[in-house]
Amino acid sequence: MIKIGIYGLGTVGRGLVQILQEGNFPVEIAAIADRSYQKKKEWIGNIPASDNPAIILDNPEIDIAVELIGGVDSALFFVREALMKGKRVVTANKALLAEHGFALFSVAKTHGTQIAFEAAVAGAVPIIRNLLSTWTSENIFGVYGILNGTSNYILTRMRREKKSYQEILAEAQKLGLAEADPAFDVRGTDAMHKIALISSIVTGKWSEPALIETRGIDNLKLTDVIWAEKMGYRIRLIARLQKDKNQVFQSVEPTLIDASHPLFDIDFENNGILIEGLYSGSNLLAGKGAGSLPTGFSVLGDILLFEKNHTLYKSLYEKEWEYLHTAPVSELSSEFYLRLHVEDKPMVLAKIAGELGENGISIASAHQEITEGDVILVIITHTAKNSAMRKAFTGLTGKEFVSGESVFLPIAPHTFHS
Amino acid sequence: MIKIGIYGLGTVGRGLVQILQEGNFPVEIAAIADRSYQKKKEWIGNIPASDNPAIILDNPEIDIAVELIGGVDSALFFVREALMKGKRVVTANKALLAEHGFALFSVAKTHGTQIAFEAAVAGAVPIIRNLLSTWTSENIFGVYGILNGTSNYILTRMRREKKSYQEILAEAQKLGLAEADPAFDVRGTDAMHKIALISSIVTGKWSEPALIETRGIDNLKLTDVIWAEKMGYRIRLIARLQKDKNQVFQSVEPTLIDASHPLFDIDFENNGILIEGLYSGSNLLAGKGAGSLPTGFSVLGDILLFEKNHTLYKSLYEKEWEYLHTAPVSELSSEFYLRLHVEDKPMVLAKIAGELGENGISIASAHQEITEGDVILVIITHTAKNSAMRKAFTGLTGKEFVSGESVFLPIAPHTFHS
Repeated sequence: MIKIGIYGLGTVGRGLVQILQEGNFPVEIAAIADRSYQKKKEWIGNIPASDNPAIILDNPEIDIAVELIGGVDSALFFVREALMKGKRVVTANKALLAEHGFALFSVAKTHGTQIAFEAAVAGAVPIIRNLLSTWTSENIFGVYGILNGTSNYILTRMRREKKSYQEILAEAQKLGLAEADPAFDVRGTDAMHKIALISSIVTGKWSEPALIETRGIDNLKLTDVIWAEKMGYRIRLIARLQKDKNQVFQSVEPTLIDASHPLFDIDFENNGILIEGLYSGSNLLAGKGAGSLPTGFSVLGDILLFEKNHTLYKSLYEKEWEYLHTAPVSELSSEFYLRLHVEDKPMVLAKIAGELGENGISIASAHQEITEGDVILVIITHTAKNSAMRKAFTGLTGKEFVSGESVFLPIAPHTFHS
Repeated sequence: MIKIGIYGLGTVGRGLVQILQEGNFPVEIAAIADRSYQKKKEWIGNIPASDNPAIILDNPEIDIAVELIGGVDSALFFVREALMKGKRVVTANKALLAEHGFALFSVAKTHGTQIAFEAAVAGAVPIIRNLLSTWTSENIFGVYGILNGTSNYILTRMRREKKSYQEILAEAQKLGLAEADPAFDVRGTDAMHKIALISSIVTGKWSEPALIETRGIDNLKLTDVIWAEKMGYRIRLIARLQKDKNQVFQSVEPTLIDASHPLFDIDFENNGILIEGLYSGSNLLAGKGAGSLPTGFSVLGDILLFEKNHTLYKSLYEKEWEYLHTAPVSELSSEFYLRLHVEDKPMVLAKIAGELGENGISIASAHQEITEGDVILVIITHTAKNSAMRKAFTGLTGKEFVSGESVFLPIAPHTFHS
């Protein structure tokens, strides 16, 4: 029996406890720390519990410290202390690892111990373990992920129910499917942390999350979700790592994907990760991106790896990390979706096509909808450089015949289904 | 540098050689055996080569024997000899493992060595390694796979081009995408071997492929592909493992799946595997199911595991195997697709509904198409027992008002997208 201590009895912690209580695994919960442990007797039973994590840190019999409180402050203290005491750590905390993993891996190395974190990215989907095993021998040039369940849930319901972001968010909060303060999820921060971890593993250099260009779904308009669908696309919050001629690009942004794309059908809180490799082609891993049992299951998997003295994560702390240089996304090319609110006057489309053309952008298709003298113009471009699109967009939105809000979004490249 | 010998320089062998020639991996090809090695100089270069596998077996410096000739006879001899000499073996041969794995694992154990076979199932998709790692701590109750690239390629083109099985098969053969003798692929044998291996790993008991109820796509009519599509389904050759109340079911058969199913979009030669687990929910792995580089990449992954002294496959030969009891698929329940060729006479639908009803089967929807006095009747049933459907089908096809060919196919259960 391996002895673990669990810090944090929230959604994931309870999932882990529930699975372990079935008694099928050689794991004993020797202590639980949770600030409201007194209200959680039905989960804790006879397990020694406290609001002080010292109950785990100071117990030399506990071999594995499981950090599930989330956030950075207390979690950082706890994980660092546990490592310094030689305990192995399992965590589901993407923010902690993305912000402080570089230092924590070094502490683990110094103290001859390890950190595992499969549950930090994409819930039950074993993306970290696969990146650390099978994919180490692949030349990966792209990773595209739906990594934030809350955003994907909101986007799915906006599309299916034709309701605004604010309406669906409020309903999701009522159902407990979005946090009271949803900023981390809907502004892309959570996905940014996750793609940073993926980038660090794939490139072998440390990706600093703050350098990743990140846009969330919080400003996304229902009209764009509807327009996208009319034209055969869906809008997903896509976290991206892309390697191109020795440059590495990273971004998180709402992106249009077409029906042939492997991530097209990943709805609700499901997560999906597409790995593009030189030898293996396009590879998809998909499953539950969040939730009590799925994420608890991932935590358990890491505990059992340690129980078997597995060294899957070892390459991460045995190496000397250098920082990853991330290139500006403006250097990338893609097709674009562009929506402009224009006046219903002669020559407007010609002027817009002219502005785009001056920036080397050609139009693949244009659609318009006229209401009370105003025109909504939606354009799909051929492949163009992001910087050119930004320049054209700035030019266009400054024109006298363009009024109100306008928006442009990238369209994901085609992949293995096409 | 780890020294390997490659037996068989076909599609997969050449993929492996091509990847290794890029020089990024600590692997040296010390010998190649291939019956037409003299015609393959452009691949072999200066590597010692022969038509006799002794060039590998008798070289004590070769640590890993890579078997890529396929089939059972010579491959069995080669793998057994290599194991008995203490060499580790990497193979892409599903037929060999499904038919003789039980004995080969025992030989490996006796001689303190190992066999790895990721490439035997689903090309580049790391399904075997994932089943041997992450999924060992899951309570898996279902595995549904598109595991045969050739069948899926043919089904995809039949649907898209509205051409018959024979037409597409002939074109696929011309393009080198189907074998001259396609029986193993189109009759389901290849998928049967693969699901047998998956079942053995998932259940921990040895699945004998011959006991798996297997139906291929070789008798599938274009009209059913078209009817299925009209009603929102696609027909896939689904290999299935299903656990239900301590019973284990296995089958390979053409199956209708709906648009919300994760395998709906896996087109052409791609493979997809859906794993249904108690904790993790529905999980999809998908990617290239065949091909030179994707499969060569999988072989390389196993070689590198051995190079790192990984023991991922060890549980398979360290255990005492018992045989898996597989329950008859007739005990399972599902919705069904039923197509009958009937006479255009009064009361026919009532009689059919009566026959179905007597067997406890109710109709969810019925569609008909009348041509020259004959009626094609297509029925989707509610959930019914397979044995009841078989009985009703036998009853119906014996009726005087039913003539010509009729068919029934199962519809896959709903999963995580719904």
